[in-house]
Amino acid sequence: MAVIHPRLQQDCLPVGRFPLCHLLLMRDAHYPWFILVPDREDVTEIHHLVEVDRQQLLHESCSLSVALETAFHPDKLNVAAIGNLVPQLHIHHVVRYRNDIAWPAPVWGRVPPQPYSNAQLAAVVAKLKNALNGGVEYCV
Amino acid sequence: MAVIHPRLQQDCLPVGRFPLCHLLLMRDAHYPWFILVPDREDVTEIHHLVEVDRQQLLHESCSLSVALETAFHPDKLNVAAIGNLVPQLHIHHVVRYRNDIAWPAPVWGRVPPQPYSNAQLAAVVAKLKNALNGGVEYCV
Repeated sequence: MAVIHPRLQQDCLPVGRFPLCHLLLMRDAHYPWFILVPDREDVTEIHHLVEVDRQQLLHESCSLSVALETAFHPDKLNVAAIGNLVPQLHIHHVVRYRNDIAWPAPVWGRVPPQPYSNAQLAAVVAKLKNALNGGVEYCV
Repeated sequence: MAVIHPRLQQDCLPVGRFPLCHLLLMRDAHYPWFILVPDREDVTEIHHLVEVDRQQLLHESCSLSVALETAFHPDKLNVAAIGNLVPQLHIHHVVRYRNDIAWPAPVWGRVPPQPYSNAQLAAVVAKLKNALNGGVEYCV
């Protein structure tokens, strides 16, 4: 099992597990912001995955996107593999609203993260878990 | 054939065509920055594509990424579907270097674009065309 990069461990909460990817939640209450981290060592780019993993990543990314749409009714999803600071391959899935604090800019480096309360955190995770409908192996 | 959004037409140069996607080059000499636009009407999210189109998009995205790696030797690729300003589905593929003007931030909204000279433009397109090795139907 690949070790999750310390920066991701620090900034995120592990909330689930797909067959290929860890599912993390960014600790930033400004936006429902989830991250998929393929459980493969030393991979930094999507096209560096072997074909079967690429397919699985696409499947998990689309499953997550469908669930985010169901759970949060975004105005737009931002789906991105950036990795300039954290080289380990990870794919952001950010729920965006026209009235969120960074709109229409992308979220990265825009405003400092806003901590979740325990109740907010539980509500976000419960909403997603419900929408995923059993698609992840676990959800805290 | 889907009409390319006016903002993309204004900011980009069409440089090629894959079976599913138009291939555009952002008119910004700061970074080799290419964009795939699936030729499908009224689609704003990757997961809104039908399954066969999702697969084809993944294939074209990875083919482009491999070519960008061959042609430009990036320190990192940034691959992203944002679309907050331009709702038509389009996937950025940005070649990033540790010494580029925006590093390590993402490129969007960072610094004003730097126009290409004709010679620079021709060189970038020629490099990519060479690396794609016939994968696109045309390349200007």
